[in-house]
Amino acid sequence: MNHRHLDSGLSDLSSRLLTMAGYVEQALECATASWKTKSRPKIEEVFAIEERVNRTHIEVDAACVKLLALQQPMAADLRFIVSCIKINNDLERMVDLTVNIANHSDVFILETIPLQLGDLAQMSDEVRAMVREVLDAFVKNDENIARKILHRDDKVDAYKRKIVADCVVEMKKDSKGIDALLNVISISRNLERIGDHATNIAEDIIFSVSGLDVRHSSGGAVRTK
Amino acid sequence: MNHRHLDSGLSDLSSRLLTMAGYVEQALECATASWKTKSRPKIEEVFAIEERVNRTHIEVDAACVKLLALQQPMAADLRFIVSCIKINNDLERMVDLTVNIANHSDVFILETIPLQLGDLAQMSDEVRAMVREVLDAFVKNDENIARKILHRDDKVDAYKRKIVADCVVEMKKDSKGIDALLNVISISRNLERIGDHATNIAEDIIFSVSGLDVRHSSGGAVRTK
Repeated sequence: MNHRHLDSGLSDLSSRLLTMAGYVEQALECATASWKTKSRPKIEEVFAIEERVNRTHIEVDAACVKLLALQQPMAADLRFIVSCIKINNDLERMVDLTVNIANHSDVFILETIPLQLGDLAQMSDEVRAMVREVLDAFVKNDENIARKILHRDDKVDAYKRKIVADCVVEMKKDSKGIDALLNVISISRNLERIGDHATNIAEDIIFSVSGLDVRHSSGGAVRTK
Repeated sequence: MNHRHLDSGLSDLSSRLLTMAGYVEQALECATASWKTKSRPKIEEVFAIEERVNRTHIEVDAACVKLLALQQPMAADLRFIVSCIKINNDLERMVDLTVNIANHSDVFILETIPLQLGDLAQMSDEVRAMVREVLDAFVKNDENIARKILHRDDKVDAYKRKIVADCVVEMKKDSKGIDALLNVISISRNLERIGDHATNIAEDIIFSVSGLDVRHSSGGAVRTK
């Protein structure tokens, strides 16, 4: 009986976290569309999603504490719940970062940006792909998919460095563009941090599935039984 | 017997987390000194502290999972452990941010910054005070001290806005200072984020002590029993 309660609790937790992850994907899509299509309604949509995320954030944490208290899970089940607590936090921060992007997108509606934004669009695609993949790894409980995400971060960081360098060149050419370009830099920084959180989630999935703590390691790992 | 094991486990966990928090304070002090005194050894010190933090980060998490598995804690003890998992993550990210500050401090050694840095110094003092206070709230398990921290964030945000605005004015005056000033902006952003994490920790302490989830609320709170 107890075991059946734990199973249904874990599957409920999993589906709540997937809802949360779905919101993150949606928010990121809207935030990207907001600057790409210069759309104020898309900015508003990000704010509306954030409210739903904040509610789900609290619900997921409460569900985790309840499962730990009432079901006293062991081994893989316990690791799964601990990972959910961390993943929940990462997802919530990711949405905060999309809100930052939405806020910076205002400038694209109001001003002409003195820079081609192809790199920013590609960076955004790359980060959204990371988010989709990490979600896939979570749904399938798949360590191998999660491991592949750990290395995608380098590509995102390279985009950011290039975008910042290009912005600086333009700023030096004409000081009138400085305000607008600072917003471009900020968007790229926020995208980079969303990528960092996707990497954190991948590490948590690996821990949940295998008991291996791969954080801060280059190859090696610490096992928690 | 079991109860005695739990108590000693909790006190061990608490002291490990305090060690971790001590590192954060130390790293922030070194990072601030690195740009204030143009000191490369201080930059190196931050990197050395980060390595110790990374090890402690993994140890604290492993200790939390072990306590949950072997002692099956309830109520306040359970909330304390769940809070420690989150606080541990926040502390680790705070040190990552001090590493960013240390990296940006290089420019202070190499170049003259075309801006008085009094505001950045005051912002840094304010953030360090937040970190010390949140540590105090944790040691004393004191909800009231934690609640006071929730509002200090506004002051930090105001400093950041002023520093960014001043940097933009200088950038427009003379494009030669742009690279250096972008580093000043980055340092202020990293300080702001350290303040955000201190706020997160304060919220976790309130949850641990009272069972109240005050995140995303303005006054109200959700109770988890």
